[in-house]
Amino acid sequence: MTGPTHQLSIRIDLASGGRIGPGKVALLEEISRSGSISAAGRAMKMSYRRAWQLVEDLNRNFGNPLVETAAGGAGGGGARLTEAGWTLVRQYRAMEQAASKTAHPHLTVLDGIVARKAEKDPV
Amino acid sequence: MTGPTHQLSIRIDLASGGRIGPGKVALLEEISRSGSISAAGRAMKMSYRRAWQLVEDLNRNFGNPLVETAAGGAGGGGARLTEAGWTLVRQYRAMEQAASKTAHPHLTVLDGIVARKAEKDPV
Repeated sequence: MTGPTHQLSIRIDLASGGRIGPGKVALLEEISRSGSISAAGRAMKMSYRRAWQLVEDLNRNFGNPLVETAAGGAGGGGARLTEAGWTLVRQYRAMEQAASKTAHPHLTVLDGIVARKAEKDPV
Repeated sequence: MTGPTHQLSIRIDLASGGRIGPGKVALLEEISRSGSISAAGRAMKMSYRRAWQLVEDLNRNFGNPLVETAAGGAGGGGARLTEAGWTLVRQYRAMEQAASKTAHPHLTVLDGIVARKAEKDPV
């Protein structure tokens, strides 16, 4: 037994409206890694249009840019996280880690009420 | 200042597939309160069909019934949570409360990067 394999994730509903979840945070991390909104979108199997829309939503919901793009325009220039963008990513991952830690004993209890697939299909 | 007003919520991705979030847990609580899947659906402004579908999804994903219906059929008889259903609700709410507590200082940090609407529209 290696403990529960259920996974906890978190969402933040901002007071200003808008929601932050694992998808947007992963997109910010990919933008940081690749230096490009379009490359980050590709890595996450979303269209450039969708990736750009999510970045615009984030910037608008925070009222501060989380991603800034270099000269060259939307498609051409590079992109990187602002200090606010980094703060969001760090705080989100810290919350997620703390939440998963506190959830662990509860997820183990859930194991007791989830039928194992192996018990139903003992192939 | 009364601290952050951002709200954290949690989702559980079960090892068996399926996801538990605040909507399904609230539905279970409403079923318990009202003794009826259709009344619970109405209270949550969803169709009877949708409420029933969610209950079926839950029962299937856990491989154990979380809701049991009394004689009288899908529409006629009453419904109540099983012990497994209660366990899920209790564990979920405990995880949510613990996660919100550990998140509090991080949400306060996020306050520092979210522009207040009042600052932008000082009407």
